[in-house]
Amino acid sequence: MRWSQLYVPTLREDPADADAVSHRLLVRGGFVRQLMAGHYSLLPLAVRVRAKIVDIIREEMTAIGAQEFILPALHPAEIWQRSGRWEVMGEEMFRLKDRKGADLALGMTHEEIFTVLSQELKSYRDLPQMWYQFQTKFRDEARPKSGLLRVREFTMKDSYSFDIEAGGLDRSFGLHKAAYERIFARLGLPAIPVQASSGSMGGSASVEFMSPSNAGEDLVVRCPGCDYAANTEKATSALPAVVDGPGLDAPERLDTPNARTIEELSLQHDVPAERQIKTLVYVVDDQLTLILVRGDHNLVEQKLIDTLAAKAVRPATAEEIQAALGASPGSLGAVGIAELPILADEALRGRTDMTTGANTDGVHLRGVSIERDIAVERWADLREVTAGEPCPQCGTPLEVVVTIEVGHIFKLGRKYTETLGVTVLGRDGERVVPIMGSYGIGVERALASIVETHHDDKGIVWPVSVAPFEVAVVMLGTSDEKVTEAAEGLYRQLQSERVDVLLDDRDERPGVKFRDVELIGIPYRITVGARGLADGTVEATTRATGETQSVPVAEAVEHVRKLLTAAV
Amino acid sequence: MRWSQLYVPTLREDPADADAVSHRLLVRGGFVRQLMAGHYSLLPLAVRVRAKIVDIIREEMTAIGAQEFILPALHPAEIWQRSGRWEVMGEEMFRLKDRKGADLALGMTHEEIFTVLSQELKSYRDLPQMWYQFQTKFRDEARPKSGLLRVREFTMKDSYSFDIEAGGLDRSFGLHKAAYERIFARLGLPAIPVQASSGSMGGSASVEFMSPSNAGEDLVVRCPGCDYAANTEKATSALPAVVDGPGLDAPERLDTPNARTIEELSLQHDVPAERQIKTLVYVVDDQLTLILVRGDHNLVEQKLIDTLAAKAVRPATAEEIQAALGASPGSLGAVGIAELPILADEALRGRTDMTTGANTDGVHLRGVSIERDIAVERWADLREVTAGEPCPQCGTPLEVVVTIEVGHIFKLGRKYTETLGVTVLGRDGERVVPIMGSYGIGVERALASIVETHHDDKGIVWPVSVAPFEVAVVMLGTSDEKVTEAAEGLYRQLQSERVDVLLDDRDERPGVKFRDVELIGIPYRITVGARGLADGTVEATTRATGETQSVPVAEAVEHVRKLLTAAV
Repeated sequence: MRWSQLYVPTLREDPADADAVSHRLLVRGGFVRQLMAGHYSLLPLAVRVRAKIVDIIREEMTAIGAQEFILPALHPAEIWQRSGRWEVMGEEMFRLKDRKGADLALGMTHEEIFTVLSQELKSYRDLPQMWYQFQTKFRDEARPKSGLLRVREFTMKDSYSFDIEAGGLDRSFGLHKAAYERIFARLGLPAIPVQASSGSMGGSASVEFMSPSNAGEDLVVRCPGCDYAANTEKATSALPAVVDGPGLDAPERLDTPNARTIEELSLQHDVPAERQIKTLVYVVDDQLTLILVRGDHNLVEQKLIDTLAAKAVRPATAEEIQAALGASPGSLGAVGIAELPILADEALRGRTDMTTGANTDGVHLRGVSIERDIAVERWADLREVTAGEPCPQCGTPLEVVVTIEVGHIFKLGRKYTETLGVTVLGRDGERVVPIMGSYGIGVERALASIVETHHDDKGIVWPVSVAPFEVAVVMLGTSDEKVTEAAEGLYRQLQSERVDVLLDDRDERPGVKFRDVELIGIPYRITVGARGLADGTVEATTRATGETQSVPVAEAVEHVRKLLTAAV
Repeated sequence: MRWSQLYVPTLREDPADADAVSHRLLVRGGFVRQLMAGHYSLLPLAVRVRAKIVDIIREEMTAIGAQEFILPALHPAEIWQRSGRWEVMGEEMFRLKDRKGADLALGMTHEEIFTVLSQELKSYRDLPQMWYQFQTKFRDEARPKSGLLRVREFTMKDSYSFDIEAGGLDRSFGLHKAAYERIFARLGLPAIPVQASSGSMGGSASVEFMSPSNAGEDLVVRCPGCDYAANTEKATSALPAVVDGPGLDAPERLDTPNARTIEELSLQHDVPAERQIKTLVYVVDDQLTLILVRGDHNLVEQKLIDTLAAKAVRPATAEEIQAALGASPGSLGAVGIAELPILADEALRGRTDMTTGANTDGVHLRGVSIERDIAVERWADLREVTAGEPCPQCGTPLEVVVTIEVGHIFKLGRKYTETLGVTVLGRDGERVVPIMGSYGIGVERALASIVETHHDDKGIVWPVSVAPFEVAVVMLGTSDEKVTEAAEGLYRQLQSERVDVLLDDRDERPGVKFRDVELIGIPYRITVGARGLADGTVEATTRATGETQSVPVAEAVEHVRKLLTAAV
């Protein structure tokens, strides 16, 4: 491709609204333009990168025996109603009516629609099946942001497996996990596989692939000492035991007129945070519920959702709390509460001599023994793990990393096949409901995540595997016949060797050309100028290192081939 | 690919609801399944064919210098409002609101959205540009039907050209026309380029590519004697002149109590249809309008729309007609009408001694001289051409063919660049509004149209260029080691020669295997059976002709290669 025939509207300045590095560089480099918040147009350079990402994913899907489909993006409401997700998906689902008034949804994901196709499977002999597609997903994000990282419309590679039994699902899940690891490795995208919540998908297990990025919104807990890694939505740690004092025979009133927070209580009354009970009030699917965590711990809402299989949770309002407990946040407690469900975090189990609110403003109770004084209905892991806590597997202090989710694989179980009435003939003649897995990679998010991890102050540094071009041949001086001849010759030779090469034949100053090639991140640059040609040489520059060496013209193609071979 | 690992749910029976051949065969062959009316899931075989079609289109787009983009499918209403098409598109446009209440549209086409991107073009030096994409279009068709031929969701290759002046547009248009001819030739799809109406696109000229199909809904007028071809929306003919009698000095009352139609008047009062004026009453953008055509001619509504640049036309109701003219259809006429606009078809110009309704039920007028007696406001070509009329170019009797539109190219002019405020610096320093073209091919419709023209009573007969597999190696007897070894060997050899080969390794009866291979339309079949192997031969069968020949095993690969080379 000749640059003069390629539309690459690079910008000198950073776009004003870009909050993430990838957003800034993809706009400046002429890869993308925003149509409206959360919707981006991909320009020719981005289309090239996207196609390479798609090809890599497709190869790895084919390698594990998955088959490609393309399913509609517009769905009848009826199928989503049958699975129960018409309601669950809430405002994140784009909904519309057709000219006849029928309810439709834009597909956020395709579990339901692939499951409809599986209704044609007849017998255990037809299983396993692994089906996938590249299809646009639409999600009405509350706050689209960070360029391609969080959008309302994007391409997803989503696959779905159908197996006769759990062992088969384990195999399909394992094949996908290994394929995803190969895919991210080939994309040059660091992606940590972590245990995660299954969220609205349902199912028994899920693994997320998380790529470190400051623009991310997910916290991942990772052990530097072993392979433990989990989303904070799921992570645990081996907290050191707290040694409690003997305590009191019964809770005792403690006047705390000025202590409305854990910290104030700690400072004014010498009660360390880990000796306090923090009482949170939530509305869980319309039911007011008390949640207890240790004073120095935070609740993870997703853990609450997962524990209770809740559809929606939200903190109660001050009014709701006042009406139920007769006090304001700051003096809340669960001692003596019988009429509301009480959940407590595992870290509080067995604790004695604790302090908590008395449900009277300005008053706390001390000497509380949780299991004696509070009617805990359910114990669960509800707290957020923080950096430095011991790994649950090996005890090493844990790290917490900011990441973006680039892939997610789920063991779904039989939720969709059951609700949509799928059965096949089993080995013993009985009807069997197939068990499913679901597996997704966001294509444009992967593209942007690669930029998040591969850039410097000059621009993007694409890995060779996904670069829009592998090599740029830059001609310095488009009116110098020797230069144009040599550059055109190298261009043709590299093309005939099937190298993906861009010829910068623009009539621009060298500074502009170098800056653009660096900004758009071409891995290798061959510079053809009059001065070098006088000695029979061109310059070969590696984008990642900035290293430049002089190479005889006649050896330039061989040199490029060696660089590309070494890079793969 | 091994058939045992490919999901191809072929059916024994025709689907009950299939009205078009392509629909019937694509469902029976396991290529597609309907999700809801107008929305189809593509199964693995269809995905393979679609990918080959996309590759051919992409190659030809690249060859003319067009560049690939991907633009959003969800659009802000505001941009469509600025072009005026938010209103024009009516019920065919899917509309929705997002969680914040903003109006959105699902893209039916992308003139507006590509034009937004063109706002960044700075100067005449940046032009011409030809930009294209493969993107899903959504159209809320009143009557989705005929499988993939008329749907509500489909992939379109749409391109858009931006030029500085009309001569540039002519060039971009010509490049696309030639590319489309090559594309349809490579797809094996007969497609007649015809003059067509530009419809809601606006613009100065358009050419449709029409493929003969009984499932089509468009009539094309074609001359067997020269290159004249046009959609009936646009077609004309060289009608022989009618010699009129001397006529009367003024129209004269003719009592016609039982003549309510052209035919009845003709039979009862000996007035041939071509001596009658047919008076039609339409509502054109809220204005009641009289349309006059010759008694034996029919109005083409699109010609009326194009003539008046109307947004919407519809026949007036009996009540509206009664209120305006005081008579029922059957006795309507335009003599003496001054308060309504009157349009007349060119074939009526200069006619005398005609008969028409008197706007009194049961009464007509005879001796009408049109130009003397009727206040015609505008003359235009409004009539439908019928088979046998003389070609406007060479006089040969015209044919009328039922077709389906597989491509459409438009000279758009400056409608979109003007309304969206695009200007670039011109050669002389002035601001210039670029001139646009727009060009589309429906990918899945092309796929189905190929089936419409390539099938027989056994199934589909794919052209080699787009077949899901080029060759099927069918093993007869999966338990005979000699057979499996020979078949596997051929399979591996063909794969290593980059032949797209399917190995039918299923444990099925030969009849089932042959029937399936024929149904799904694989161009060549190599049959490996014990009997042939005893003589050291396999059978090679050509799907299109049914021809079978015996080929030594050792020569089978070379034989296939020759067949494939000859087919391209």
